[in-house]
Amino acid sequence: MPFVTVKMLEGRTEEQKKALVEKVTTAVSETTGAAEEKIVVFIEEMTKNHYAVGGKRMSDE
Amino acid sequence: MPFVTVKMLEGRTEEQKKALVEKVTTAVSETTGAAEEKIVVFIEEMTKNHYAVGGKRMSDE
Amino acid sequence: MPFVTVKMLEGRTEEQKKALVEKVTTAVSETTGAAEEKIVVFIEEMTKNHYAVGGKRMSDE
Amino acid sequence: MPFVTVKMLEGRTEEQKKALVEKVTTAVSETTGAAEEKIVVFIEEMTKNHYAVGGKRMSDE
Amino acid sequence: MPFVTVKMLEGRTEEQKKALVEKVTTAVSETTGAAEEKIVVFIEEMTKNHYAVGGKRMSDE
Amino acid sequence: MPFVTVKMLEGRTEEQKKALVEKVTTAVSETTGAAEEKIVVFIEEMTKNHYAVGGKRMSDE
Repeated sequence: MPFVTVKMLEGRTEEQKKALVEKVTTAVSETTGAAEEKIVVFIEEMTKNHYAVGGKRMSDE
Repeated sequence: MPFVTVKMLEGRTEEQKKALVEKVTTAVSETTGAAEEKIVVFIEEMTKNHYAVGGKRMSDE
Repeated sequence: MPFVTVKMLEGRTEEQKKALVEKVTTAVSETTGAAEEKIVVFIEEMTKNHYAVGGKRMSDE
Repeated sequence: MPFVTVKMLEGRTEEQKKALVEKVTTAVSETTGAAEEKIVVFIEEMTKNHYAVGGKRMSDE
Repeated sequence: MPFVTVKMLEGRTEEQKKALVEKVTTAVSETTGAAEEKIVVFIEEMTKNHYAVGGKRMSDE
Repeated sequence: MPFVTVKMLEGRTEEQKKALVEKVTTAVSETTGAAEEKIVVFIEEMTKNHYAVGGKRMSDE
């Protein structure tokens, strides 16, 4: 606690995801006062055919 | 904004998903007053072994 | 099934929400082939201090 | 209704998932008074590179 | 881990919610093999005007 | 895009929440390469009677 979910298009490298969870955890800890070891981060990836803005899917552009 | 998530069993065609995000976006825009280009739609698919009603998974029926 | 979640800023009227769930249900039924009576819609409202774009909350603009 | 989501690391067997949805459904029914046939359970699986505690992903340990 | 979310209409008593998280935690532990102290349960309550089945909100019935 | 949800117990001040969304947005931008103005952050607050670890709610401790 806190629990952080980052939802984004697939395609980031493992290095990017590793850095993402590290930096997000630090940011949440510094601003909320929660201990780092209590912070949970989930990554959720989307494919381009399952994400739309303005009624248009990324895969249809 | 608004953000719409449609969670359903896998199996719909790309044509169905394309129409789904278009019609849902229009429906949300017309009823909430939000501009279409601001509306985000996510599709999330489930497999039959991860969805249960009444304690019974679809894959066990 | 399907399960639809609409997440948006608070402030819509009951009439708007009533129309929203009706039209979204119709849109999902027509495009996925699911029967209307099987479609579930959840509305989730956010306050302006809990929603940020570009690092800036709506309540700070 | 109620709607229960169980999010966990991948790797459980089909037998475990089958038992999971059965027992969770019974637990929810007995304590909330909801009829079993109205209770929906979703399983969501995570991979080890998408789940972190304390800024460290399971896949990096 | 696992993380369980129970989404339901508001109105259950504190006693019911207390029993709910206890019994669900036991059910998840027994079937997945996860230690009880690792299992997290979230309760999310809905109001009747934010939940619809078949295009009709509970508050409109 | 990306979309970040931070779920935590209620009780943080507005200043903390303001700093939270700023620092999380920066962290996500730096590590994923997404432009800051495309990043969305949602805050979700829980009450102590709706959050349990090991079958025990925070409000029962």
